Amino acid sequence: MPLPPTIAWSNDGTAVRIIDQRQLPASEVILELTTVADVCDAIANLAVRGAPAIGIAGAMGLVVAARSIDASSREGFLAALRDAAMLLRRTRPTAVNLPWALDRMLASAAATQGEPADISERLREEADRIAEEDRTMCRRIGECGASLIRGAARVLTHCNAGALATGGIGTALAPLYVAAERGQHVEVFVDETRPLLQGSRLTAWELSRAGIPVTVLTDGAAASLMRAGRIDLCIVGADRIAANGDVANKVGTYALAVAARHHGIPFYVAAPASTFDAATATGSDMVIEHRSGEEVTHTFGVVTAPEGVSIHNPAFDITPSALITAIISDTGIHSPPFAF
Amino acid sequence: MPLPPTIAWSNDGTAVRIIDQRQLPASEVILELTTVADVCDAIANLAVRGAPAIGIAGAMGLVVAARSIDASSREGFLAALRDAAMLLRRTRPTAVNLPWALDRMLASAAATQGEPADISERLREEADRIAEEDRTMCRRIGECGASLIRGAARVLTHCNAGALATGGIGTALAPLYVAAERGQHVEVFVDETRPLLQGSRLTAWELSRAGIPVTVLTDGAAASLMRAGRIDLCIVGADRIAANGDVANKVGTYALAVAARHHGIPFYVAAPASTFDAATATGSDMVIEHRSGEEVTHTFGVVTAPEGVSIHNPAFDITPSALITAIISDTGIHSPPFAF
Repeated sequence: MPLPPTIAWSNDGTAVRIIDQRQLPASEVILELTTVADVCDAIANLAVRGAPAIGIAGAMGLVVAARSIDASSREGFLAALRDAAMLLRRTRPTAVNLPWALDRMLASAAATQGEPADISERLREEADRIAEEDRTMCRRIGECGASLIRGAARVLTHCNAGALATGGIGTALAPLYVAAERGQHVEVFVDETRPLLQGSRLTAWELSRAGIPVTVLTDGAAASLMRAGRIDLCIVGADRIAANGDVANKVGTYALAVAARHHGIPFYVAAPASTFDAATATGSDMVIEHRSGEEVTHTFGVVTAPEGVSIHNPAFDITPSALITAIISDTGIHSPPFAF
Repeated sequence: MPLPPTIAWSNDGTAVRIIDQRQLPASEVILELTTVADVCDAIANLAVRGAPAIGIAGAMGLVVAARSIDASSREGFLAALRDAAMLLRRTRPTAVNLPWALDRMLASAAATQGEPADISERLREEADRIAEEDRTMCRRIGECGASLIRGAARVLTHCNAGALATGGIGTALAPLYVAAERGQHVEVFVDETRPLLQGSRLTAWELSRAGIPVTVLTDGAAASLMRAGRIDLCIVGADRIAANGDVANKVGTYALAVAARHHGIPFYVAAPASTFDAATATGSDMVIEHRSGEEVTHTFGVVTAPEGVSIHNPAFDITPSALITAIISDTGIHSPPFAF
């Protein structure tokens, strides 16, 4: 069964259409986002998530915003556009793709001559270009990464860096899709990825839709699976990569990297070049988003921790570059020492 | 607020009274188990859990069973008792305390002269002795282990090896309770411990009841907390310890031990001597219980994985003795090389 697109324009082209990832795998609900506030909510609440996908969502959100700006002057229009970009930018602080896409959209607007209507038209083209580039980027990552998968392979991944996180076939999952297309036997083990279970809910869903064998495990079970010799390699995505190669990705990634090193298992990060953040020297310069403790205390509506206890709920962690075998990107395979 | 006893006799002495740990922390429900089938269900379904506690539950379950045996001869009675012990023994395969307690009860029955009524009376005394020894054992572990906690300490633990897992103040948590009694500042970080969240549901509940500061985190967040220098030591429990010191404990323990080693953080295991299994040479000789995939696919009633995917859901993992700093027991602090 083909996957519905993660993010696309509605049929009449006025709304951003997404599959509500909070409701997967139980229900496939399509949302149509018609205002910039809708898009902000969808990003902040993880109805759409994954660094590349939220970059596309931000760009498309700015197109939606542009349509509703009531400004007669070019300057007033651009100022209102910057305000809308600021709202979108604040929804998630860690991924670099979102500010990257918004800055690119704003620069494109500023460089466009003419009236607000001309700029709006240009913004729509730029957002479509960002989405199209994302599809191409995913395919390139897939082709680069597939060269690292030899014969049959048992691959461990974490969270979701797949089709649902991008406009294409994913980042971490792209090499697996390409290897499977080429007829290689790929078996994927996926951490469920607490607290929001994007591994079990999303990665397992999209891989099984694609006919790739997938086994879900709790996050705590991955290291013992490595010890049992049942994992050949790990591939994860990234939300931001510092100049030195330190990687911010979903919390739990670092624990996997430590375990992979302990067992001598290759640990790959797959991410588009837009994730490289040359302005950030190392992982310790990155802002890590801490999310509501309710994600831990109220697990899918059930009380799972007593009232009043402290909760430590970072959304991401930093994996130092020393634990990374290679970074697979649309610009090729980067080996240590990294310098982006 | 004092903790209700984890396991005790009902007021009239005929039923095994437990706090239903599946319903914590949302509700404090007391169950009265009046038949051996009730006790088997409670153990198998984790209404009572924790290696020492299920040893006590097994012993008390055999007392309940003995009362309902309708046998005129001593031999018939003992045979029926062995059958009941077999039912209890099959409920959980990994912890050694359950067969240990059952074997001790059966040996005590076999060694008792007289009629079934005399043997029943003797079984009741033996079960009470096992429970009382457990309380004493916990206190000793607490006192031994507290000597390893110097001044203020930030301690990471996994799952629940506390009062709720024993007849006393716990095993892994006992040193923390004793250090807190002595006025030391102990701060506990607890992995929520998927899939059944005994860390967030049970450990956080009992520690916060006791006034000890506790912070809950997802299992994947522990390694990055270590990297941030926020953990001084780890203490976990054990369900079975092989002759060479390899430890079977809740899945995820091994990942923590690997991370602790990577960061140079002491990793302690606290367990009663009844957990030492001299008949099992190494961890690879242990049977690891695999539990229903529904614990992962249906998280507290919500569908959290697509239908038809494979689930890897071991309840335990093996931590090799090489990663263990010391084993804290009621018989003292055991340092490597271990030989039990």
